[in-house]
Amino acid sequence: MPECTKDYLVVAQNASGRNLNVPVYRFVGEKPGPKVYIQSSIHGAEVQGNVVIYHLIEALKHAELKGEIILVPNCNPVGSNIKSGEYTLGRFDPVNGQNWNRGYFFDESLIRNFAETVNIEQPLPELKKQFRQSIKDAIDNRLAEPWGIGLAQRLNLKLQRFAFDADIVLDLHNGPVSTRHIYVPEYARESAKYFNIANVILIPNLFAGALDEATFCQWWKLQEELNQIAPEKQWDFNVEAFTMEMGSQEVIDFNAGHYDAQSVLSYLNHKGCFDNASYQPDDIERVAVYLKDYKIMYSQQGGIVEYLAKPGEKVQQGQIMAKVLNIDELDNAKAVEDIKAPCDLIPILHFPSASILGGTQLYKCFTHYFEL
Amino acid sequence: MPECTKDYLVVAQNASGRNLNVPVYRFVGEKPGPKVYIQSSIHGAEVQGNVVIYHLIEALKHAELKGEIILVPNCNPVGSNIKSGEYTLGRFDPVNGQNWNRGYFFDESLIRNFAETVNIEQPLPELKKQFRQSIKDAIDNRLAEPWGIGLAQRLNLKLQRFAFDADIVLDLHNGPVSTRHIYVPEYARESAKYFNIANVILIPNLFAGALDEATFCQWWKLQEELNQIAPEKQWDFNVEAFTMEMGSQEVIDFNAGHYDAQSVLSYLNHKGCFDNASYQPDDIERVAVYLKDYKIMYSQQGGIVEYLAKPGEKVQQGQIMAKVLNIDELDNAKAVEDIKAPCDLIPILHFPSASILGGTQLYKCFTHYFEL
Amino acid sequence: MPECTKDYLVVAQNASGRNLNVPVYRFVGEKPGPKVYIQSSIHGAEVQGNVVIYHLIEALKHAELKGEIILVPNCNPVGSNIKSGEYTLGRFDPVNGQNWNRGYFFDESLIRNFAETVNIEQPLPELKKQFRQSIKDAIDNRLAEPWGIGLAQRLNLKLQRFAFDADIVLDLHNGPVSTRHIYVPEYARESAKYFNIANVILIPNLFAGALDEATFCQWWKLQEELNQIAPEKQWDFNVEAFTMEMGSQEVIDFNAGHYDAQSVLSYLNHKGCFDNASYQPDDIERVAVYLKDYKIMYSQQGGIVEYLAKPGEKVQQGQIMAKVLNIDELDNAKAVEDIKAPCDLIPILHFPSASILGGTQLYKCFTHYFEL
Amino acid sequence: MPECTKDYLVVAQNASGRNLNVPVYRFVGEKPGPKVYIQSSIHGAEVQGNVVIYHLIEALKHAELKGEIILVPNCNPVGSNIKSGEYTLGRFDPVNGQNWNRGYFFDESLIRNFAETVNIEQPLPELKKQFRQSIKDAIDNRLAEPWGIGLAQRLNLKLQRFAFDADIVLDLHNGPVSTRHIYVPEYARESAKYFNIANVILIPNLFAGALDEATFCQWWKLQEELNQIAPEKQWDFNVEAFTMEMGSQEVIDFNAGHYDAQSVLSYLNHKGCFDNASYQPDDIERVAVYLKDYKIMYSQQGGIVEYLAKPGEKVQQGQIMAKVLNIDELDNAKAVEDIKAPCDLIPILHFPSASILGGTQLYKCFTHYFEL
Repeated sequence: MPECTKDYLVVAQNASGRNLNVPVYRFVGEKPGPKVYIQSSIHGAEVQGNVVIYHLIEALKHAELKGEIILVPNCNPVGSNIKSGEYTLGRFDPVNGQNWNRGYFFDESLIRNFAETVNIEQPLPELKKQFRQSIKDAIDNRLAEPWGIGLAQRLNLKLQRFAFDADIVLDLHNGPVSTRHIYVPEYARESAKYFNIANVILIPNLFAGALDEATFCQWWKLQEELNQIAPEKQWDFNVEAFTMEMGSQEVIDFNAGHYDAQSVLSYLNHKGCFDNASYQPDDIERVAVYLKDYKIMYSQQGGIVEYLAKPGEKVQQGQIMAKVLNIDELDNAKAVEDIKAPCDLIPILHFPSASILGGTQLYKCFTHYFEL
Repeated sequence: MPECTKDYLVVAQNASGRNLNVPVYRFVGEKPGPKVYIQSSIHGAEVQGNVVIYHLIEALKHAELKGEIILVPNCNPVGSNIKSGEYTLGRFDPVNGQNWNRGYFFDESLIRNFAETVNIEQPLPELKKQFRQSIKDAIDNRLAEPWGIGLAQRLNLKLQRFAFDADIVLDLHNGPVSTRHIYVPEYARESAKYFNIANVILIPNLFAGALDEATFCQWWKLQEELNQIAPEKQWDFNVEAFTMEMGSQEVIDFNAGHYDAQSVLSYLNHKGCFDNASYQPDDIERVAVYLKDYKIMYSQQGGIVEYLAKPGEKVQQGQIMAKVLNIDELDNAKAVEDIKAPCDLIPILHFPSASILGGTQLYKCFTHYFEL
Repeated sequence: MPECTKDYLVVAQNASGRNLNVPVYRFVGEKPGPKVYIQSSIHGAEVQGNVVIYHLIEALKHAELKGEIILVPNCNPVGSNIKSGEYTLGRFDPVNGQNWNRGYFFDESLIRNFAETVNIEQPLPELKKQFRQSIKDAIDNRLAEPWGIGLAQRLNLKLQRFAFDADIVLDLHNGPVSTRHIYVPEYARESAKYFNIANVILIPNLFAGALDEATFCQWWKLQEELNQIAPEKQWDFNVEAFTMEMGSQEVIDFNAGHYDAQSVLSYLNHKGCFDNASYQPDDIERVAVYLKDYKIMYSQQGGIVEYLAKPGEKVQQGQIMAKVLNIDELDNAKAVEDIKAPCDLIPILHFPSASILGGTQLYKCFTHYFEL
Repeated sequence: MPECTKDYLVVAQNASGRNLNVPVYRFVGEKPGPKVYIQSSIHGAEVQGNVVIYHLIEALKHAELKGEIILVPNCNPVGSNIKSGEYTLGRFDPVNGQNWNRGYFFDESLIRNFAETVNIEQPLPELKKQFRQSIKDAIDNRLAEPWGIGLAQRLNLKLQRFAFDADIVLDLHNGPVSTRHIYVPEYARESAKYFNIANVILIPNLFAGALDEATFCQWWKLQEELNQIAPEKQWDFNVEAFTMEMGSQEVIDFNAGHYDAQSVLSYLNHKGCFDNASYQPDDIERVAVYLKDYKIMYSQQGGIVEYLAKPGEKVQQGQIMAKVLNIDELDNAKAVEDIKAPCDLIPILHFPSASILGGTQLYKCFTHYFEL
């Protein structure tokens, strides 16, 4: 049985001048296997991933692990600790609005340069090792920038240094009020079937700043570059990264977390992380969309809203999704306004407050979805 | 059928220099009867009362009203419009932390002075009218204070001027994550049976700043003073005021609001506000506590919490109410800490976020509760 | 003398369901001339521009205006009214962290397409008119998007519709604690000499989301495209746009605003907006940097800071810019840490709070600056 | 020379489950003398006191101390680390609005009971020791409350336990934009002359929640009680406590802090804390008011403000103190509104933001002031 070692990584310093660190749990198997990196709560109010990691650690203590698994719960000690009212203001740096999940490193020109200069005849593991080193060196350069570096970016880069050593990266998030869903790079769509997650978003090779992209886009881009240089080699680095949305923010649920952990273990088992493990995916319906069909529904008006369409339910075009109360018209027919589905869709998440301004992200919806 | 008239009351001015107003809906019956004042959302995130008022207006349009009903939904235009993250920061003035529901007027010495100087031989309605005028004059003096007056207090006083004309005052609130409950002055405990609200808090004649107290404490105090002066008269002003907590903040529910409105109509019917109305309370179990037995359970530790005890459920001493995850101990027996009920209780509400610091109001609970 | 007309533009709706509008002041000259658009306070705490607009209106009432000037003070009614503590949380949408000055429209492919299809033989004013129409049509399409549009973007687009009709666009901002400075597109550097602003940042043709860029990048890009198609024509659209930083946020100063207005009038006079006006720039030293040399100095540590280097002062390499107090080491030699200038520089602005986390934008500095 | 020892006091636990502590610096003299307790930054944005403590420690290292001095800088690790925008949200708990300086312990009935039961014939030092113990026992009971205790109160009580052992308590604060001033209990007005602080507020024996009151009101009340029981003894406990307001929040200034420290040392020297020390107060004009004459000027209107009257300056009745810009009237005579002094006064502090709502604390002013 593997032992769990625990370490602490300093990622920031607060206004009291105190170091802020995150715990790093590590399991190393006796046999070789994939390297796995799992973090949770980069957005401070999205806490269910910590429960998933708790259940994963419970399971890993009794697993025949191959390779190595690093787990970093509550990985954002700043965002986890900003309250404003009763809720956690965890999505962005309260000083400047910077999303905590958008400061990872990605530089296309560096990848292109690497592809053009690397010895492509060497064994693949060796080439991967060199690529990892070159990215980590670039990250280290950023961290050592003499003019300094912003808080969110520093936090992100310190975590990414770990993550970029891994073959499998899972970034555990939550939506506002949300059903479970997962972001999957298009090339890894088959892997989506090993998670017990009904809603799958297939994302292209476009870096928008998040950790999953900061992982897979680098390898995908490298693959594209090398396929131009040496197409006969059919490059495949077998690195996968996912953002998993484990339900709603501001809520933890130990039972659901146990199920979520089983889902992760099923995928890891499929990827060869265990000997003699029986983790298998459940036989559930999975629907998928391409990212372009994952649509945000913005409110036209401000007011007070009841969300009738529940996350995960199939909704028909024209069905009432929400009702908006109009405070100034309570005595007449304009008191309540219906918001209807513009097409067939599945709402995946909705805004967590009943009070909205015009231009609020009311729902995010699967449209043109299909069975996976 | 009474007509609904609509007016607007300016209560504040924002940083753009624009007036902020609230709608005032008014129904006047053809026959005499009680004056009723109902407001909602003095705490900006507590929005369900607006739905209740919507349903009340629907019903009042077809009622044979006696007396007069004034309804002021969304009565705090500042608190309703402060977002911090996705939630509404509606409980206190974000500038100075002042609770929006604690700036009402109450001055014992003024009441004592009134009691000592009023002609107690005049008819009761006339005496009530004089008392109302004296309080409203005092409020007007405050509003006209040459050095000015604070934002929350100005808002409160402008609303209280309306409310103090009423015989019945209902202030519609919500708890964080909450079951329905109602604050009832001890002398009006019989009235609690006309609301369809299972949980009743009986409060003494102690002014702590809220609108219900700012209403009934004045009359209660006056009664106490006059009973000392002329005990033979058995003074009773028949003024009642309640704070009703209509479930959880940040949520509206039209169906529940319809039921809540029936509950209010049942009470108003009992108080003689209607002719030929059939509104009756439901036959439900009602439990009550004295305010001193309505206990706050504070967290000893910080961490991430699952709330197992649900608002409204009866809980036995020793039962696990919540579990706290300890991020630094996920690999050992201290990973999860149980929080147990210190006595038999009914949790009425709990904190709405899974992330807590030590010293957070985890639950508020009925202890030593009894059937009403 | 031109008359000032006043109108109101609805830009948003708040959670009370009320429209939020901004005042639009307009002066139309009797003779033709440039169209000018000036807005202030898109970031809600940056209020000095409103005073500048006040003084401009005072002056314009007595000017022989040519062309047209539109002035939109306090153009962000949401951001101007969010308090969190005593300060205005005006830089980003408190719901999602989106910078209020980053949602303007810019689409290179649309410009390219326009250049390829427009009749380049028609008169320049006609071509400009067509280009304006095509951009405004695109903006209108965005605003009419059936799934809706985000709050910040809607606000930005509604303002940009006005601004894109103008030949001259001034967006009035403030820094945190800041000396006056101005962002100038590289092609318009000569114009910088007509403002009384000592510190000039020259910016390239790269759209990063702000209104100045959303104006001039479009024309600059069009010029580049047309110069490829028909280089012999030496395209020049004579459209200029600037972001002016009028000192520190959270402060207004009527006297300084009068001087700032003179500075704007001097530039407008140079651009032919007046007959018989004597507005001239002051004879001051102006220093400039390229945007790449406008450096952010991030703090390495958290703590409490005294800012010794004052905005606008020339600082030598190695000079102490700030001192950080270390609360845990007050009894020893590590109590105070010096932060030194890494090269010769001019601090333009610094962070407005003494309390910083590691990774805070401590200063923004001109390096490699030169006389303009 | 006394040695400085350093310890850490845990006062809270954050949402990551980590203990939050404050440093406690302690100097013990070789000879007996007063016990002194000095804390700073209970309001997180009021940071100058930390610099004062730094300079005090520097001085104490070379002093011939009598008695004992405890210094607790940055005593609120929660409030020091909440940012909302660039500023520190340090005045109240962001969860519930509770002022961080209002949760100290004070219970009149306990004091009365002590006075009635204590042996008044024993030596005064012994009686003081018993009183201290009884208050500290009551504080410990509160801290051990089985239902727990709120965050702010826990923090306050943990600090008060230290402070109540002292004969001299200094609580270092800042105003918003403020000149230096000091709160002095009426009975200790002579002591005010030993501080180099020009503006003195004399406060009565009324507990309103702050640390200075939580210290001196207890002793003052005890003295009153004992003077009723045994007036012949002329009770005097020689305990003094002050809230010192060291200029403006969000700013530190090492030079000013050195001067502030000299001011404190002068007072301590007067109280017999040193042998052979030459610290003396400066010969400055000191003006004082009774608390009832320290008036808040609230804004009548919302808008954007220039503060013309500077903190500390004498202002005549009718003088313009501030100008408010009216965004909707920039083209006419109502564009600027003057706010005038209602009487002769000295503004002590003003609101730190140019953007105000109606009902904002614009200024706090000395009226009916007199020379001390």
